[in-house]
Amino acid sequence: MTAAIDPVDLASRLIACPSITPQEAGALTILGEALQELGFEVHRFLSGSAPDGPVENLFASRGSGSPHFAFAGHIDVVPAGNGWTSDAFTPQIRGDLLYGRGAVDMKGAIAAFVAAAADVPTHRGTLSFIITGDEEGPAVFGTAAIMEWMAERSIRPDMILIGEPTSEHRLGDMAKIGRRGSVNIWIDVPGTQGHVAYPHLADNPIARLARILATLEAMPLDDGTEWFQPSNLEITDLRVDNPACNVIPGEAHARLNIRFNDRQRGPELVERVRDIVEAHAPGARFEAKISGEAFLNEPGPLSDMMTDAIRAETGLTPVLSTSGGTSDARFLTRLCPLIEFGLPNATMHKLDEAVAVDDLRTLRAIYRRMIESALGAG
Amino acid sequence: MTAAIDPVDLASRLIACPSITPQEAGALTILGEALQELGFEVHRFLSGSAPDGPVENLFASRGSGSPHFAFAGHIDVVPAGNGWTSDAFTPQIRGDLLYGRGAVDMKGAIAAFVAAAADVPTHRGTLSFIITGDEEGPAVFGTAAIMEWMAERSIRPDMILIGEPTSEHRLGDMAKIGRRGSVNIWIDVPGTQGHVAYPHLADNPIARLARILATLEAMPLDDGTEWFQPSNLEITDLRVDNPACNVIPGEAHARLNIRFNDRQRGPELVERVRDIVEAHAPGARFEAKISGEAFLNEPGPLSDMMTDAIRAETGLTPVLSTSGGTSDARFLTRLCPLIEFGLPNATMHKLDEAVAVDDLRTLRAIYRRMIESALGAG
Repeated sequence: MTAAIDPVDLASRLIACPSITPQEAGALTILGEALQELGFEVHRFLSGSAPDGPVENLFASRGSGSPHFAFAGHIDVVPAGNGWTSDAFTPQIRGDLLYGRGAVDMKGAIAAFVAAAADVPTHRGTLSFIITGDEEGPAVFGTAAIMEWMAERSIRPDMILIGEPTSEHRLGDMAKIGRRGSVNIWIDVPGTQGHVAYPHLADNPIARLARILATLEAMPLDDGTEWFQPSNLEITDLRVDNPACNVIPGEAHARLNIRFNDRQRGPELVERVRDIVEAHAPGARFEAKISGEAFLNEPGPLSDMMTDAIRAETGLTPVLSTSGGTSDARFLTRLCPLIEFGLPNATMHKLDEAVAVDDLRTLRAIYRRMIESALGAG
Repeated sequence: MTAAIDPVDLASRLIACPSITPQEAGALTILGEALQELGFEVHRFLSGSAPDGPVENLFASRGSGSPHFAFAGHIDVVPAGNGWTSDAFTPQIRGDLLYGRGAVDMKGAIAAFVAAAADVPTHRGTLSFIITGDEEGPAVFGTAAIMEWMAERSIRPDMILIGEPTSEHRLGDMAKIGRRGSVNIWIDVPGTQGHVAYPHLADNPIARLARILATLEAMPLDDGTEWFQPSNLEITDLRVDNPACNVIPGEAHARLNIRFNDRQRGPELVERVRDIVEAHAPGARFEAKISGEAFLNEPGPLSDMMTDAIRAETGLTPVLSTSGGTSDARFLTRLCPLIEFGLPNATMHKLDEAVAVDDLRTLRAIYRRMIESALGAG
């Protein structure tokens, strides 16, 4: 039997690598070596090229055949920012907390799952790690590239657990069974510049844009579903850049974001917005970028396993939520049922990101129960 | 009898003084000496202090009692800008045109009126010059200050001719008998910044602003009058400054301008806009600056004199208009009937500002007829 792994120690060693997207900064080496010692076959490979790459990814598996239970996560972190109490990439325990960039998002969860894999050295089927180096960045050469790599080798999990920090106030209070989709849209309304005293010689693009914005604000989307909150549109920026009080400007710009549930599809939303823009400002420039479609894994065996494991270790029954931002679940959901569960997210992306040492140990126990439920105790 | 004055020569000497607001740069000295030689009593005085002052103004009069006919104008010019064919402050005649900053707006007209005053050395009543050094700037310490100075001395004209460049395509095609009012309004809508995925934790100020803009765009003003075009509202700027696609911004800004006819009053328009802003965004910051109220001098003896003088010298019957931007007429209209008439304005405020030498001579003749009509030939 392999030796037990201390998730606090492993998390600390991972935090010490400044793996700001797309650098792995040694983190994948530490992870790969730990997994190799646990009997995993480890594959590391570079994907993509500048400017969004290259990105180094890792796939590791132990055992063979089905069932195939995969843990997915990312080794990259967002930049530290200024103002940390102690250095963001020098892990430090103060009181009950382990501080460092990535502590909760999500080196802590990776360490907890590695420790759990050490706790269950033998099992049925396959246990694997799908680790991207580009979740916090453009996500072009990360999970999507690993999935391509896996498809070429006919590797397809039956269940995926993503270790994103889904807990809100206490470890175990929330897991995610779906995510909303997201689309950003840029609108550039052209007009004709002129003197404000001679409006008949000008064409004010702001007048057109005002009608577009009012129509967008009033655009009905949906009232939500049993599992999703209502789809929502937010205008996130306006720009004209006209310093002169007596000048009608020549162009006006807006940017908006729609977070949408599974009653909507990204391309259809884009077309609806485009129609509104065209109706009020024919010839306006229009650009849309769909970050991901909405998806839902309706509660079933996987979420039951997750709920049982969480309840056994924490006494809490997790809310099965679809709230919040996007994650790489938007890619992995194409493969099989998946669920997301991890540490409390209050400090993610913030200064003094920190994880409770006790939470790391409890998470390791929850993950161990998941491995046991999915692949049978060794 | 005094010697005739060549308006082209005097205009050239005035143009050679770079009297960019609020500098007089010697222009008032040249003008004052010319008027003294013509028997005018000349008063020069400084008004105001930094940052909008001090501004040097000039009042000059000849004769006494009524009728009192005043010529009003400004010696200051807008900056040259880059790209002139010849130096903006080195007057140059090329072909039929005299080039230089202020050639049409409005050193040319001042020179023409001085020449006309030389042509009519004796007359009934009072002939005066009301010359400001701050028409192109904030206009705080210019005409308003001269009017205060005049009021203290109980000087009040019966008729005023302002030499603004009112002609459009040909000298004599348009005079102005009124001006629209103008008000600028700044709106700052506060909100609560947040992540776009959690709209319930944020308050998007753009949503409120969009409703404000749509309501403003639909706000009925008027259909114009016999003499005025319809009042008109233009939103002239929008600003949010939010670079992040996934952030709901904390503040949104708009600026608008209303050009309004004499069916509207500035303070009432401001209150209407303020009510709309308050209805959609309680607590929004709101700032309004009324540049001037609308005014009209309905056609009468003064415009008849003007029309006759123009027709006699050019064969044209001027359109009596209220179009275009504001001028210092908005202040002087409080004193007595006034009319604005001057050179073609196609090049004003532009590169290579130029006046036709023939137009200067014709304008001098038109102005001479105005003096003769107003005060009787000497």
